[in-house]
Amino acid sequence: MDAIEVIVAKRDGGELTAAQIDWVIDAYTTGAVADEQMAALAMAILLNGMNRREIAGWTEAMIRSGERMDWSALDRPTADKHSTGGVGDKITLPLAPLVAACGAYVPQLSGRGLGHTGGTLDKLESIPGWRASLSNDEMLGVLREAGAVVCAAGSGLAPADKKLYALRDVTGTVESIPLIASSIMSKKIAEGTGALVLDVKVGSGAFMKTPERARELAETMVALGTDAGVRTVALLTAMDRPLGRAVGNALEVEESVEVLAGGGPSDVVELTVRLAREMLEAAGISGKDPADALGDGSAMDAWRRMIAAQGGDPDAPLPRAGETMTVEAPASGVLSRLDAYAVGLAAWRLGAGRARKEDPVSAGAGITLHAKPGDPVRQGQPLMTLHADEAARFERALAALDGGYEVGETAGEQLPLVIGRVTA
Amino acid sequence: MDAIEVIVAKRDGGELTAAQIDWVIDAYTTGAVADEQMAALAMAILLNGMNRREIAGWTEAMIRSGERMDWSALDRPTADKHSTGGVGDKITLPLAPLVAACGAYVPQLSGRGLGHTGGTLDKLESIPGWRASLSNDEMLGVLREAGAVVCAAGSGLAPADKKLYALRDVTGTVESIPLIASSIMSKKIAEGTGALVLDVKVGSGAFMKTPERARELAETMVALGTDAGVRTVALLTAMDRPLGRAVGNALEVEESVEVLAGGGPSDVVELTVRLAREMLEAAGISGKDPADALGDGSAMDAWRRMIAAQGGDPDAPLPRAGETMTVEAPASGVLSRLDAYAVGLAAWRLGAGRARKEDPVSAGAGITLHAKPGDPVRQGQPLMTLHADEAARFERALAALDGGYEVGETAGEQLPLVIGRVTA
Repeated sequence: MDAIEVIVAKRDGGELTAAQIDWVIDAYTTGAVADEQMAALAMAILLNGMNRREIAGWTEAMIRSGERMDWSALDRPTADKHSTGGVGDKITLPLAPLVAACGAYVPQLSGRGLGHTGGTLDKLESIPGWRASLSNDEMLGVLREAGAVVCAAGSGLAPADKKLYALRDVTGTVESIPLIASSIMSKKIAEGTGALVLDVKVGSGAFMKTPERARELAETMVALGTDAGVRTVALLTAMDRPLGRAVGNALEVEESVEVLAGGGPSDVVELTVRLAREMLEAAGISGKDPADALGDGSAMDAWRRMIAAQGGDPDAPLPRAGETMTVEAPASGVLSRLDAYAVGLAAWRLGAGRARKEDPVSAGAGITLHAKPGDPVRQGQPLMTLHADEAARFERALAALDGGYEVGETAGEQLPLVIGRVTA
Repeated sequence: MDAIEVIVAKRDGGELTAAQIDWVIDAYTTGAVADEQMAALAMAILLNGMNRREIAGWTEAMIRSGERMDWSALDRPTADKHSTGGVGDKITLPLAPLVAACGAYVPQLSGRGLGHTGGTLDKLESIPGWRASLSNDEMLGVLREAGAVVCAAGSGLAPADKKLYALRDVTGTVESIPLIASSIMSKKIAEGTGALVLDVKVGSGAFMKTPERARELAETMVALGTDAGVRTVALLTAMDRPLGRAVGNALEVEESVEVLAGGGPSDVVELTVRLAREMLEAAGISGKDPADALGDGSAMDAWRRMIAAQGGDPDAPLPRAGETMTVEAPASGVLSRLDAYAVGLAAWRLGAGRARKEDPVSAGAGITLHAKPGDPVRQGQPLMTLHADEAARFERALAALDGGYEVGETAGEQLPLVIGRVTA
């Protein structure tokens, strides 16, 4: 077999055989297939698609390129959640300890942010002492100690995906549902979770701009998980506006702790509880209602154990950015629109995100929202506070926000928080 | 500007701007755009196409990546021919000196063979002493001496095309009419010829399998040449069966010399004369009929001067392969089919062609055809003779020929030698 044969088959609209898929993923991992060959194949896949059988084969081949974790030594079911990424999406932080407090183990391998969406590991790293890199044994130790662990995926997990993802990122081949679905699911299946809830974001701040595309991605991923023996369900949720009132690393940790303390913004609480219920149901666990676990302190206890078990000090003060700037309401009325992408881009420019994988992020940078769409506002009242380490960053952040919010006479249209649900 | 922006524009079916095309070709030549990015772009172009304006811009940008030759110091018009490649296609060898003998200068930059089609330089290199690499000054000297020069393109000519062609070859992105047309025409326009005749081959042994695809390629190239100020015309010619009776390097030189001596197979003579008339007409030269120049020895004189001016000995015996094998007619009747691709593949396997650019070719290897489609044959008579340096090659060559020829009761269908003509 050779690379050109596989590329030409897909280029000409054909279906790749199982043998072709296995060969090309293996040969790409070892370097026998060159980056330029895989780039041509990725573009052919993006434009000509893959059917369900091909996507499943592609995903399995990526899983087989590395190790597959195994939590069968644990005495309770495992459940995990994956979000396709959004602005202010800190849900993993309260969710993982909450689900642990309700009786499941949550072994979550997570990532860093790139572009305008934040990364869970970046957020947790704003906690003094907390570390993202754990060995498999350490992961098991944290799980036994706290019931939940959120850490970086080791290099042994789906290395083919790691290599392919970096390639897609520079070759304009990210936006392919078969490639997105297989990338996400290869890591989640290799992670070894028994149950998986996918939070597929929809809207300007999300990767999928329309419910139709989001549903297609969700259905593809649910099928992949189900075929691999993982009980998988997906929710389509709103990302036309930011989630919660905090966008940034330490700022989102702070808001997550408020939720674990029984407070916090209603949309963050609602989505956290809804996802927790889905995870527990998929894991076959009943008995404790997640809403109660937020109220009775048991989720907070799990959070503190989880942070401490990974070296973090849950009581240490969080870093704050040295410079702030207030954005005021330009008129009186109702905040009719607050665009998720504009806010995400502004937070990124303030220092909360990175442009290249090797860039550092600022722990304190970000945006605090004082009003959400539908809220009444008076001219001159603070709409949001920008946080940055250097005041020089404000100008470009304000440019990103320009046109990203509107004060009108009535509340604008917005997506329902939970738009849909996809099951096998 | 960045590579992803350009890739995504074409991926999403858009038209590339002139600035995008100029930037991406320049950045690829300098290495700022990586091979994997150009591979993704090439696949997007193959699948989504380019319009006439984009193809012209792409071609111009490739020309501008290197030097452009200038023959204005010469006192007569220049004319060249380019064939898209076929089996037994030695036409350049008699044609270049023939056209020179009729009053034009023929400055031909040519290539080596890859795969089942032969390369003009490989054929000429079977002449003892002949060398393909000339400086621009040497080219001019040979042109003044002989009226025609056939040599290798220097590295300064359309370097972007050289790099892109090597990339397309390994990424399954060769078969794109915009990329094929711009590759050929960037070199021919940079070569500086005033008139150009394109011989676009059609059939199993050609790159273009159908007259429709060949016509599309021809029209694209004629438009490119015309827009660049080169008087360009194209013929669509048959490549369903081999051209002439010799396939191989020295074997084709031998047949070409027969044509220059006033003999040779009728199809080779007919096509050579037809192409010569087209070149002379495009160059605005009248007065001498090419058929006469074959008969009166003037074309042969030009050939001898041309070979000698490049170090070759026109009187030296040509290399012959040490081993031969005869393929006999399996029945009596008419040779109803002799497939160009099967014969080309067999000659390649005998050693006449190369699998990789760095491989050597055998000067003597190849096939002599004792019957052409439509000829009556008797069972057991020699149909062809295979020539190779090692007898071990015969088995794989016979396998390539299996099913590639048929003896029936009547002559089969075949394409007319000249199928069509395309002008601006």
